[in-house]
Amino acid sequence: MSYYPGLIESLVTKNDTKIVYFIMDGLGGLPVDDRRATELEVAVTPNLDELARRSSCGLLVPVAAGVTPGSGPGHFGLFGYDPVENNVGRGVLEAAGIGFPLTDRDVAVRGNFATVDREGKIIDRRAGRLSTEENQRVCKKLRENVKVPGVEVFVETVKEHRLLVVLRGDDLSGDLADTDPQTTGAAPLPVRALKPEAEATARLFQQFVDQAARVLADEPRANMVTLRGFAKHKPYPSIEKRFQLRSLCLANYPMYRGVAFLVGMEIHPVLPDVPSQIRVMKEKWADYDFFFQHAATTDKTGEDGNFEGKVAAIEELDAFVPEILQAKPDVLVITGDHSTPSALSSHSWHPVPVLLHSRYSRIGGATAFNETECARGALGMLPARDLMPLALAHARRLMKFGA
Amino acid sequence: MSYYPGLIESLVTKNDTKIVYFIMDGLGGLPVDDRRATELEVAVTPNLDELARRSSCGLLVPVAAGVTPGSGPGHFGLFGYDPVENNVGRGVLEAAGIGFPLTDRDVAVRGNFATVDREGKIIDRRAGRLSTEENQRVCKKLRENVKVPGVEVFVETVKEHRLLVVLRGDDLSGDLADTDPQTTGAAPLPVRALKPEAEATARLFQQFVDQAARVLADEPRANMVTLRGFAKHKPYPSIEKRFQLRSLCLANYPMYRGVAFLVGMEIHPVLPDVPSQIRVMKEKWADYDFFFQHAATTDKTGEDGNFEGKVAAIEELDAFVPEILQAKPDVLVITGDHSTPSALSSHSWHPVPVLLHSRYSRIGGATAFNETECARGALGMLPARDLMPLALAHARRLMKFGA
Repeated sequence: MSYYPGLIESLVTKNDTKIVYFIMDGLGGLPVDDRRATELEVAVTPNLDELARRSSCGLLVPVAAGVTPGSGPGHFGLFGYDPVENNVGRGVLEAAGIGFPLTDRDVAVRGNFATVDREGKIIDRRAGRLSTEENQRVCKKLRENVKVPGVEVFVETVKEHRLLVVLRGDDLSGDLADTDPQTTGAAPLPVRALKPEAEATARLFQQFVDQAARVLADEPRANMVTLRGFAKHKPYPSIEKRFQLRSLCLANYPMYRGVAFLVGMEIHPVLPDVPSQIRVMKEKWADYDFFFQHAATTDKTGEDGNFEGKVAAIEELDAFVPEILQAKPDVLVITGDHSTPSALSSHSWHPVPVLLHSRYSRIGGATAFNETECARGALGMLPARDLMPLALAHARRLMKFGA
Repeated sequence: MSYYPGLIESLVTKNDTKIVYFIMDGLGGLPVDDRRATELEVAVTPNLDELARRSSCGLLVPVAAGVTPGSGPGHFGLFGYDPVENNVGRGVLEAAGIGFPLTDRDVAVRGNFATVDREGKIIDRRAGRLSTEENQRVCKKLRENVKVPGVEVFVETVKEHRLLVVLRGDDLSGDLADTDPQTTGAAPLPVRALKPEAEATARLFQQFVDQAARVLADEPRANMVTLRGFAKHKPYPSIEKRFQLRSLCLANYPMYRGVAFLVGMEIHPVLPDVPSQIRVMKEKWADYDFFFQHAATTDKTGEDGNFEGKVAAIEELDAFVPEILQAKPDVLVITGDHSTPSALSSHSWHPVPVLLHSRYSRIGGATAFNETECARGALGMLPARDLMPLALAHARRLMKFGA
């Protein structure tokens, strides 16, 4: 559908309506060989089906025809950000996931602690999956001992063997190739510039790696650092600035918290489960306009190729729908950020069922909430990027365009 | 849908086919609380339903997902003009509505005659809704007595308390704020530039207002002028130039006549009703390629929140369909420029049912003409801007693209 950058922002107005997104990660599926139905079609979902019959349904195309999105583009689209223009590098997403306050002078990269032998060849790419506590101790050692002239160096623990490295300085570039050879028996690759203007930054990161190797030489396991997903940070206009939405993120996984953080949502501390997320949403109902509820079980089971597990995950989430409706959101959207069919054990390009419930929803022909029925819905097939404008419109938060 | 500016124009060819648009303003609707059907679904429309079963049906998105269009963008889209690129200011639309021949050196603005007290505060924003005759007398007085150095001044009666003011000169800007304070008890606001380059134009319009106040000082009611909707005119390429269509507008309301005038249609004098419009179309059948039939009752009843009234308006228009078909148009399009659900008492963002009838129409699954059935139609959901290319194609007026 037509896309006019800046048009929606120019029409946004404030009111006291509430918008809730309930995102079931990787929701869309595929039939497997021996059955003709997808996970969502097999699952018994009385609440979703009943709601679908009173809502506008459709199918979201996360990025473009045939394109399988990562979680970054998947979520950027749902939040009304063009997923290609706003494609975010892994390093930046990792930083955002732990709430590291990046600036526009930063290049961020994901690191792994690894174990190398005397010749410098990797013998364990994850340093024996060292504990998070050990990671913290080693990161502290790096912070105290590694100095790269001309830039500030930040070293942060993520989890287990994973860390974040950020260099802050002038004219840095993120166009650098990964140093992780993705195999054992090989030495880490030197930091290599992918474009001429990244040569200087490559030398700075190489200095970091060389010093880190010296500082960690006496470590029994974490005696090397490999780097992948270099990315220069470009600040995003916030969801509050663009759409006048004070927004609360209720997601537990760093990746999704990261995207929400990048678009300026408030990030609630990690909660044990979806019911807790819904309870917190109700407690904070007056303080925000937009609530981002995220559940990861649908994606994890799909990634595991576990059809029955994904069916069970969907059925479990279905049971929470009445609790969300109790809050009486003016607009409730239920969808996923992409499909993760268990038949593929991975993300896929298939469109994702979506349901938009509000008192101004036109009701189409969908008689249940699944891939086939949503195709008969009033929303048709639409880019994920169009979802937020529709949510704002149904919440009466967009003014008329033109005379 | 993909959009390639200039492509359609490069493919246009002439023949003697006839295209008719029958536009029911604000056609799309919503269910209201106590019923599950929209106005169009409740209305008994045997002619539209029968025609839908022999036509390609679909849903038009007037501008973009979630965007509620004014009548200007709504109609620009239907005529094959991008509704955002060609967004037209209120002043220009008002001028076009009375057939004022604007040039590219003009800034136009809508005016109200108002009554102010001795301190200059507005006591009646519409000067007691003075008669059109009185308006004409006062406009003449302004024309004869107000002179602004460096520009030509045009003052035209619109209707009752409404007038049009146009300044014509070099380097004028329309980026000016309204002077109408939209309330009584306050003085009109000074003319204020919204951008630095509009400062000079602001001073010229202020001179107009100051002189008008002096000239009208002895008027009992119309002793002041307020201005809103300043707009610089940018001439549009005509529908004849772009699509080789000699076009006749059969619409009675200034707004729709205005858009048709801006795209270079011939504007027929106002007629008493739709049957007269259809009769004139048949009389002029040989002289034009494209006929724009417009009915406003569907929008007016929707704006009034009158569900039953809108149902009745639709049923009344349904009865005219056989008369239009008698003319044997090669392509008949029936749709609206936007939705005006009586549940909202206003324009809305919801897609609009559309029917395209021709001997080359592919028949889809729509069994009646309404929002739900059109979603099953052969056209799918499409931007309004794509409608004219489809009408031209079905009229065999587009050549093959490429070898």
